[in-house]
Amino acid sequence: MNDPVPSIALPDSACAERVGHYLDTLTKPPGSLGRLEALAVTLAGLTGEDFPGVTPPGVVVFAADHGVAEEGVSAFPQAVTAQMVANFVAGGAAINVFSRRIGARLEVVDVGVASELPPGGIVRDRVRPGTANLAREDAMSRDEALAAIAAGRRAARRAAEAGCRCLIAGEMGIANTTASSAMLAALTGAPVAELVGPGTGMAGEALAHKRTVIEAALAERGPDPADPLDLLARLGGLEIAAMAGAYLEAAARRLPILVDGFIATVAALTACRLEPALRPYLIFGHRSHEPGHRVALEALGAEPLLDLDLRLGEGTGAVLAFPLLEAATAMLAEMATFGAAGVDDSQAS
Amino acid sequence: MNDPVPSIALPDSACAERVGHYLDTLTKPPGSLGRLEALAVTLAGLTGEDFPGVTPPGVVVFAADHGVAEEGVSAFPQAVTAQMVANFVAGGAAINVFSRRIGARLEVVDVGVASELPPGGIVRDRVRPGTANLAREDAMSRDEALAAIAAGRRAARRAAEAGCRCLIAGEMGIANTTASSAMLAALTGAPVAELVGPGTGMAGEALAHKRTVIEAALAERGPDPADPLDLLARLGGLEIAAMAGAYLEAAARRLPILVDGFIATVAALTACRLEPALRPYLIFGHRSHEPGHRVALEALGAEPLLDLDLRLGEGTGAVLAFPLLEAATAMLAEMATFGAAGVDDSQAS
Repeated sequence: MNDPVPSIALPDSACAERVGHYLDTLTKPPGSLGRLEALAVTLAGLTGEDFPGVTPPGVVVFAADHGVAEEGVSAFPQAVTAQMVANFVAGGAAINVFSRRIGARLEVVDVGVASELPPGGIVRDRVRPGTANLAREDAMSRDEALAAIAAGRRAARRAAEAGCRCLIAGEMGIANTTASSAMLAALTGAPVAELVGPGTGMAGEALAHKRTVIEAALAERGPDPADPLDLLARLGGLEIAAMAGAYLEAAARRLPILVDGFIATVAALTACRLEPALRPYLIFGHRSHEPGHRVALEALGAEPLLDLDLRLGEGTGAVLAFPLLEAATAMLAEMATFGAAGVDDSQAS
Repeated sequence: MNDPVPSIALPDSACAERVGHYLDTLTKPPGSLGRLEALAVTLAGLTGEDFPGVTPPGVVVFAADHGVAEEGVSAFPQAVTAQMVANFVAGGAAINVFSRRIGARLEVVDVGVASELPPGGIVRDRVRPGTANLAREDAMSRDEALAAIAAGRRAARRAAEAGCRCLIAGEMGIANTTASSAMLAALTGAPVAELVGPGTGMAGEALAHKRTVIEAALAERGPDPADPLDLLARLGGLEIAAMAGAYLEAAARRLPILVDGFIATVAALTACRLEPALRPYLIFGHRSHEPGHRVALEALGAEPLLDLDLRLGEGTGAVLAFPLLEAATAMLAEMATFGAAGVDDSQAS
């Protein structure tokens, strides 16, 4: 895996077209299931299957720390990253609860937590113990960014080899909205003030301070917006790089990808800059409450499935949207056609 | 059941408040699960349970015909109502597919189909074989409207007695967007042109004709907007009245109600005019593609969970939203607290 970017095939447009026509033979007015029908067509194109499946989904939560946490940009102390990893292992976090509901394979991968972790229940693929403080120096080296991408690709490969048919990547990393906002500003040129919101709980002066930290980092790091690896290394996070790698590997394996919120979308945008062929494989789970998410979604031309004011991360928004993908595939596989059901569609076309 | 309206209790505000506080002890930043947290609080208030459940849900599809179909207001012939009921019985319709996914108890009730139906698999509670043509005479008598409400109440009672913990009502009735649009115009005073859209597949001249039929009916029937029963009788449908009855009975039994699309929302609005105490029990599943739905939702101050351009009916949009209710209850029942998980929340409050 010296090349960070695997080869990604175009979707199977003939299969997608076939499924689009088949949808109009099912016992419903043509188009009346709206975005569910579009999802079915998309899933057919991605998988090349007339009756695509997405179950079981693979949820991979990448955990890593951020040196910039020492600037006071998060409502929570850095130790919470490791504490939450322990909570994932114990099964008590939101991502555990929601992943159980959809029958997902859930894997937690340490790609860069700064402190000790419980002995079992996680995959150890730590590149370094947290990034450096991007307000003062580059978050990591280019080689470390490549290593984190490779760790993400390994996780997607494990999910695929375990039989998962859809990939969801989540993250845990105190201060990672700061890194993501910095990356997004560099990727899109959008003003920091438009991107930075409360994250998981900042307001007032603390929020203004977060913006100042990001603006200063952008000026001092001077990342090359045309070089996504440079961006990841100077401003990014190990879990963000790993998510990008997981997306690329999943697409190379023709697995549909359900993208979570703000941080996941910044990782997806970065991955698309590395390899634009990734874009069709991305289905967007939800629109986050975090203001930067709108900018990231627009940069990708993405219209998410849900809009529920979520801002938790961990992959939760994507997992909550997953039943819609399952419903789309069940619609194809299980609905009767007009002909088979003896329903008159003579006036409907 | 001579009184159409059962007594409906106020939600348990103390329970809702308790659950709101409990949510802030769970291992997530306060409020970060957005509308899911609001749903959990709502469900606690409705059921009076600190750990409310919504599973299994009861889906009741009410089927009935509309005399106004003879005016050519639908893309499908009237016979499709009975054909689709047969499809429900055979398990091949969208509502069957989606109901299976959520483990729902699905019941199909004939409250007024105009033609023969298959011998088994449905509940026969037919008030009359379809309404009269509301373009020429009142759709039904006041007593028939009351009888259809009572049929709906019986269905909700069956669902509750079978152990269902959430009610979803769906409908099948060719031309029922015409009846619903007429009712909504009378209920809200909104211009017909703002309400009437393609239904399940009308466009151009056919759509203009549908509007003309509704405007003429409104003028000739002269319903009393302050008398919801008069409105139901003159302009309504047997399945619309039954849905209203089912909602009222479910709320009287403290069952949360997940409302489907345009027709279901007009039924819900009518039921709220009969008994405003119903309103808190209504959770709205989705925003339909049908333009009148927006008006009906605004009249109820409702913000639906999903917005997926659905316009099928049958209860499908509500069933697709149901996993979000389940996720909200699972969040309460299964997530660890900060204290139990040893996660530091000292800076989070």
